[in-house]
Amino acid sequence: MTTELEQKPQESLQDNLKQVVALLHKHKLVEDLIHKQSGPHQDLVETLVHRQHLTELQKRLDALHSADVAHILEALPLADRLTVWHMVKAERDGDILLEVSDSVRESLIADMDDQELLAAAESLDADELADLAPDLPEDVVAELMTGLDAQERERLQSALSYEDDQVGALMDFEMVTIRDDVSLEVVLRYLRRFDELPDHTDKLFVVDQAGLLQGVLPLKRLLLNDPDKRVLEVMADDPVTFSPGDDVSDAAQAFERYDLISAPVVDATGKLCGRLTIDAMVDVIREESDSEMLNLAGLKEEEDIFAGVWRSVKNRWAWLAINLVTAFVASRVIGLFEGSIEKLVALAALMPIVAGIGGNSGNQTITMIVRAMALDQLHPDSARWMLKKEIGVSLANGVIWGGLIGVVAYALYGSPLLGLVMTAAMTLNLMLAAFMGVMIPMTLVKLGRDPAMGSSVMITACTDSGGFFIFLGLATVFLL
Amino acid sequence: MTTELEQKPQESLQDNLKQVVALLHKHKLVEDLIHKQSGPHQDLVETLVHRQHLTELQKRLDALHSADVAHILEALPLADRLTVWHMVKAERDGDILLEVSDSVRESLIADMDDQELLAAAESLDADELADLAPDLPEDVVAELMTGLDAQERERLQSALSYEDDQVGALMDFEMVTIRDDVSLEVVLRYLRRFDELPDHTDKLFVVDQAGLLQGVLPLKRLLLNDPDKRVLEVMADDPVTFSPGDDVSDAAQAFERYDLISAPVVDATGKLCGRLTIDAMVDVIREESDSEMLNLAGLKEEEDIFAGVWRSVKNRWAWLAINLVTAFVASRVIGLFEGSIEKLVALAALMPIVAGIGGNSGNQTITMIVRAMALDQLHPDSARWMLKKEIGVSLANGVIWGGLIGVVAYALYGSPLLGLVMTAAMTLNLMLAAFMGVMIPMTLVKLGRDPAMGSSVMITACTDSGGFFIFLGLATVFLL
Repeated sequence: MTTELEQKPQESLQDNLKQVVALLHKHKLVEDLIHKQSGPHQDLVETLVHRQHLTELQKRLDALHSADVAHILEALPLADRLTVWHMVKAERDGDILLEVSDSVRESLIADMDDQELLAAAESLDADELADLAPDLPEDVVAELMTGLDAQERERLQSALSYEDDQVGALMDFEMVTIRDDVSLEVVLRYLRRFDELPDHTDKLFVVDQAGLLQGVLPLKRLLLNDPDKRVLEVMADDPVTFSPGDDVSDAAQAFERYDLISAPVVDATGKLCGRLTIDAMVDVIREESDSEMLNLAGLKEEEDIFAGVWRSVKNRWAWLAINLVTAFVASRVIGLFEGSIEKLVALAALMPIVAGIGGNSGNQTITMIVRAMALDQLHPDSARWMLKKEIGVSLANGVIWGGLIGVVAYALYGSPLLGLVMTAAMTLNLMLAAFMGVMIPMTLVKLGRDPAMGSSVMITACTDSGGFFIFLGLATVFLL
Repeated sequence: MTTELEQKPQESLQDNLKQVVALLHKHKLVEDLIHKQSGPHQDLVETLVHRQHLTELQKRLDALHSADVAHILEALPLADRLTVWHMVKAERDGDILLEVSDSVRESLIADMDDQELLAAAESLDADELADLAPDLPEDVVAELMTGLDAQERERLQSALSYEDDQVGALMDFEMVTIRDDVSLEVVLRYLRRFDELPDHTDKLFVVDQAGLLQGVLPLKRLLLNDPDKRVLEVMADDPVTFSPGDDVSDAAQAFERYDLISAPVVDATGKLCGRLTIDAMVDVIREESDSEMLNLAGLKEEEDIFAGVWRSVKNRWAWLAINLVTAFVASRVIGLFEGSIEKLVALAALMPIVAGIGGNSGNQTITMIVRAMALDQLHPDSARWMLKKEIGVSLANGVIWGGLIGVVAYALYGSPLLGLVMTAAMTLNLMLAAFMGVMIPMTLVKLGRDPAMGSSVMITACTDSGGFFIFLGLATVFLL
């Protein structure tokens, strides 16, 4: 189990990383030398130097917190990553696997055999195993199950039965429970019998004999009140609770809003079945913002930046393919007006300006809306308000920037009518961008999708095809 | 001071918001009726109904946690927001101002007079005042200062002397300090004299007479150990500490990695000067991800989604203007080849495909890199590795998608050479996108800038102008 760090780490994260990289480089230089030279004497010397670097690296790794080792692994290309991974003491493997990102975890697990995986998993609790299990080979999970006692196995199965985005999948089972009819003095004595309290214990859970949650006793109240008082008098009897089926994102927001450190999870009958803690919620917050950003760019999921070329191609191909289709559509829109362009070739040079500004402005709108939706600030009733506002913004931008570009087009090509068409097309395309920038994420949400999902590709598709059609259409009608 | 919520809120956030909006709508309907009708009898009835809705709304707001009221204020358009704000009890104003986002806070403060602001600030601690002060009128801040005692004033001035992104600006001063030569029993008795412990107290700070930090005593250790032991024997004597000049982003990462709840802040002499807590760090994490996402889209800063049209225009104009310049450059690149387009108008229809795919792919690369940099996963030594990988990915995509589009172009226009030019141009532009996608954020960081800052606009500029130049250039050389 990873525990809260109480002793200061010796060096900053960046320093750690730099030193590990430096040692790895020395190690590689020596290896290269060994391969190049073959005199028996040099060989020996080099091997000794070689060993010395590795010992130094090993010592440095042993001194680091698991989270720091995880960070170093994430920041190294695959080959270096595996060199470092092999040097980590086997009993820390489990902790470190929990700390690294999903894609890096996959790369590490792929390098371990079943025996090593079983050994790594041995030190973990049920809730930690549940995090790891989906990435492990099936036979390893089966073997792990048989090694657990009945309670742990039940907990693991329960945790695995929930979706990744449900509270049940993130709760842990390390709770200190007490009865409500004892005095605080008894609680204090009871606690002294523990060797260790679970991390993030800021409150004790008060349950009855059937395991039903009666309330919580914050440590603060335990410490501030007269030891002769009974738990019942002091506890908070209607605490914030979650149920295993709750959405983790809502739970994380509740933790953030109400400044919680830990909270009980109860099932439909009111029975205490687990505990949520702030560290898991911080991870949720981090992952959510990440996935919003990645989704906006049309990246399928978290990508290990050091993943191989083919893996990256696979991660990115879906939205590129969609983009290709939309770009092809835009190209066909232009194709419709080939006759016009042949007559007035300036149109070809000006049309990307109309499309580009529309795309940029639409992306600004969509980013704002996706963010507001993620923070639950956008009520469906506000959609009309938003639409009116965004169209107002686009009108203002259209008149200002479209007017400016219209003047420039007039100056360049000497046609006042061309300048007017340019201004009108830009204004209309900015309005289209505003409209679609509000409607795309709103519609995705109504369809139960993630509003960020490739929104950027979709808005660009609208503003490209739309922009070309509006500009070339207006030009054909008014100029030719 | 906002305290951790211990009692369960009655309703979910969305429900609260819906009910407030419903009540506001009823209230507005009634107001409209009053304006339309003028019979003395109706007037009275309507006024009564009107009052009843407002009373109900008032009651509902009083029952909500400050964080929930803040959320409702953020999710309402300006007029409704101010209606609700006026109904909030004056003594809660301070708490709520602390919870809302910067732009919403500004809109609320703009609506308050100096007396109201002074009253709102009265209930706040020095560190909370420091958060608020930059948004308050200068004379209000001056008046506030005179109302504080010497210690509070010194704290406020110290907090204001740090930049927003320094630990000193985010630390609070609510610390429980103890000496190392007393027994745990004495500490326990000492704590019982408090009415309340500061939020997020998971450890006590051990200082000597000069105020130098000797160590920390986690509550866990206080509870688990024999009360006869002395603090010195039980405390952690080399805890994780921060200094007021540290970067908050590094501090937040340390909290996340080491699962901290609170940590002491010490100055250069080792004197304890404040405390960092997880709730402030969660806000930092949330704000950082937000600003990355907004910066990528070229939005200047957090924008209140209900801000007026002119405010939004101002927030977005800078990057739109830059985009306009880059679009104009791209347009001039096309202008160079007007002769070629006149001879082969198909080029006009095909060129946006080359530019569009390049932009999309470049945005994927840049998003990945910005994210990895924000998580400190990208070591400068890895830049070359990244570049090689991204160029590999772009080569693969170029051959696959470029090949496909080449075949389509051949089928559409009947020219195999045109197809080949299309494939070559797409591959080259994808490689340009990969190169710039790595170099832009890396260069921005080397210049000490935020790597996300408008990266998306810059990469699009490169892939647009570059794509047009590559495609039209190749076409001019090989086809005409």
